[in-house]
Amino acid sequence: MSMLEQMGKAAKQASWQLAVLSTAKKNQVLSVMADMLEANSEVILQANEQDMAQARATGMTEALLDRLLLTPARLAAIANDVRQVCRLNDPVGHVLDGSLLDSGLKLERRRVPLGVIGVIYEARPNVTIDVASLCLKTGNAVILRGGKETHNTNLATVKVIQQALEQCGLPAAAVQAIDSPDRALVNELLRLDRYVDMLIPRGGAGLHKLCREQSTIPVITGGIGVCHTYVDDSVDFDKALTVIESAKIQRPSACNSLETLLVNRNIAEQFLPALSAKMAAAGVTLHAAQNAMPLLQNGPATVVDVAEGDYDDEWLSLDLNVLVVDDIDQAIDHIRTHGTNHSDAILTRSLSSAEHFVRAVDSSAVYVNASTRFTDGGQFGLGAEVAVSTQKLHARGPMGLDALTTYKWIGYGDDLVRS
Amino acid sequence: MSMLEQMGKAAKQASWQLAVLSTAKKNQVLSVMADMLEANSEVILQANEQDMAQARATGMTEALLDRLLLTPARLAAIANDVRQVCRLNDPVGHVLDGSLLDSGLKLERRRVPLGVIGVIYEARPNVTIDVASLCLKTGNAVILRGGKETHNTNLATVKVIQQALEQCGLPAAAVQAIDSPDRALVNELLRLDRYVDMLIPRGGAGLHKLCREQSTIPVITGGIGVCHTYVDDSVDFDKALTVIESAKIQRPSACNSLETLLVNRNIAEQFLPALSAKMAAAGVTLHAAQNAMPLLQNGPATVVDVAEGDYDDEWLSLDLNVLVVDDIDQAIDHIRTHGTNHSDAILTRSLSSAEHFVRAVDSSAVYVNASTRFTDGGQFGLGAEVAVSTQKLHARGPMGLDALTTYKWIGYGDDLVRS
Repeated sequence: MSMLEQMGKAAKQASWQLAVLSTAKKNQVLSVMADMLEANSEVILQANEQDMAQARATGMTEALLDRLLLTPARLAAIANDVRQVCRLNDPVGHVLDGSLLDSGLKLERRRVPLGVIGVIYEARPNVTIDVASLCLKTGNAVILRGGKETHNTNLATVKVIQQALEQCGLPAAAVQAIDSPDRALVNELLRLDRYVDMLIPRGGAGLHKLCREQSTIPVITGGIGVCHTYVDDSVDFDKALTVIESAKIQRPSACNSLETLLVNRNIAEQFLPALSAKMAAAGVTLHAAQNAMPLLQNGPATVVDVAEGDYDDEWLSLDLNVLVVDDIDQAIDHIRTHGTNHSDAILTRSLSSAEHFVRAVDSSAVYVNASTRFTDGGQFGLGAEVAVSTQKLHARGPMGLDALTTYKWIGYGDDLVRS
Repeated sequence: MSMLEQMGKAAKQASWQLAVLSTAKKNQVLSVMADMLEANSEVILQANEQDMAQARATGMTEALLDRLLLTPARLAAIANDVRQVCRLNDPVGHVLDGSLLDSGLKLERRRVPLGVIGVIYEARPNVTIDVASLCLKTGNAVILRGGKETHNTNLATVKVIQQALEQCGLPAAAVQAIDSPDRALVNELLRLDRYVDMLIPRGGAGLHKLCREQSTIPVITGGIGVCHTYVDDSVDFDKALTVIESAKIQRPSACNSLETLLVNRNIAEQFLPALSAKMAAAGVTLHAAQNAMPLLQNGPATVVDVAEGDYDDEWLSLDLNVLVVDDIDQAIDHIRTHGTNHSDAILTRSLSSAEHFVRAVDSSAVYVNASTRFTDGGQFGLGAEVAVSTQKLHARGPMGLDALTTYKWIGYGDDLVRS
């Protein structure tokens, strides 16, 4: 039995214990875990120092180094996030629906944990603790595979989490990290369907493609957002520009940021110069389609031709594609062709246009007169977010605690047989 | 663009039209479809004749031939099933939940079709019409790949369905069948993730494994049931034996039939001889574990030693494994090791045993004092069944119309930005 199979088997066994824990017990574990993360901060910060030193030696950019860095204050904030998870409702045990059937069978659907969850993620040390706490709260065991840049930090963190588990009388195998940066282990993890019930890759398009193609475990893909906003011909320019500016510049690196603006032809002549002024002030470079260029090139904003592929990739920067469309249906067609089913918005005063857009655009989140930036577990009131799914099975959009559960049909009879 | 890519693209385009149809319109299509299946029964029955002739020539068994055979009466019954689907509630458009968030965003989750569904199935001509009608009712397009034995029947059936679609002003591509028995096309279908949103394989373990390993499309696997019943030490023997007999003999070829009986040691000495008498009368062969053999071999039933692998495969016949267990936990362990997460039952008078079993056994359907045979869309009141899922993501157990939908988050603002 390989190391990963052993981990899988141990995780599955741990999951059976976790599945039947009371909410109070799970909250106790989370609380002990938060305390021990603070009490053992020195060990974790030392491990993080090692990762930081290696990252500096390999020439990691300042932005990525900052993402990797743990400080006493950051660790305390993460520990507080764990305490926050205690306050969330536990979905496990909730009865979704039920009925007494004509046959005499009393049937109910009850929420239960998924079992074992595999998570593959990049170099963010906070994800280790985030994911572990959300999985524990929902009674799931988890196998973590973090980025190699945070290898030492993750191992030190998981060790503390395991100590907390054992102190509460629970198996350490409830939270395990793959303790080798060997890439072949990712491929092995992807085929561990005997033990792992769901796989969440949190990373770029390449990781998602690998998982879709190689995994024999059901995968949740998402997190890639080529988000659109369509400006209908009945809008208040100032308000529309405020929404567009916020959707683009608030946090350009986020997957729910605006990447392509589609403007109705009827207002293009007035709207595009106003857009140019607003975007120039915000430091946004416009990537103009041929039909938008004449109306943009005399404005103050930096404008370049849109290039092959620009419509199909996230900018994640202060760049925005601009295209003029004949009508709402051309906008919808563009979104269907180039979108990633993440978040798309319409700005309009027309009820009919709004409802047409909402029904026709097949994205996880569709907005009317709102920024695409709202697609977020916290904003949606889910209390937490494991990932943002852009696929259609199981969970769509921001995934909260519910998305870490499934249901079980339970039938009660009085020595009942089917007629 | 390959033939399958063209089919996929056409299906996706059709799905956009289907997604926004009213329930009344969808019911009209189904009603026209039912009428036309009857009106064109001659063409379909002739095609079925061809399939039957080929099947006879290749020496197909009488049981399989009967499954393949269509008669005027059977076709009329299938057409009536389609009319029945009209009467089911349309889940599309249903608002699952919603709220007005502190940010001012009015958020709701609305049920929407999945889009394009791929179904791979065996030689049952009724599945073609069943699946097509359920997909249409939920606004999904479908690509069908039936068994090669029903090739002519399926093509003739789908042609009639497409005529019905066009007569109602809808694209024929809403229901398509792969019109070549070439097996390579299955592999191509499995990688059509650009167009197909969900794949349902309805067949044996081999097909499910192929789909899990090769598909880049999310797959719903299921339909394989190694179902257990645990007989606790507090049961009414007569009633327990009635449930066991029914679960085993009512329809042995069904996936929800009983395959392994686990008997508590405390009652084994009295219960097993009684079981032997009941099973002998029902013509069931017992496959006894070493610890059950001494108590069974003097009874009237045919008894053989349980063999390697017997616990892990479906019998689908009048055969039953019998094992004595020390207690409920050993029964649960056995089910965890050998079960397929389909349907498992406990027979007991103890509330505490019942609840322990229900919580610990991780199957799609868990029963207390009832036959495992209840796991069925019709029995569960779903009105229809697309498949029985034994995986945990998206849908579990019998999949009704809801399982052919997903949801969309819709956010309404008044030119709202995230703060």
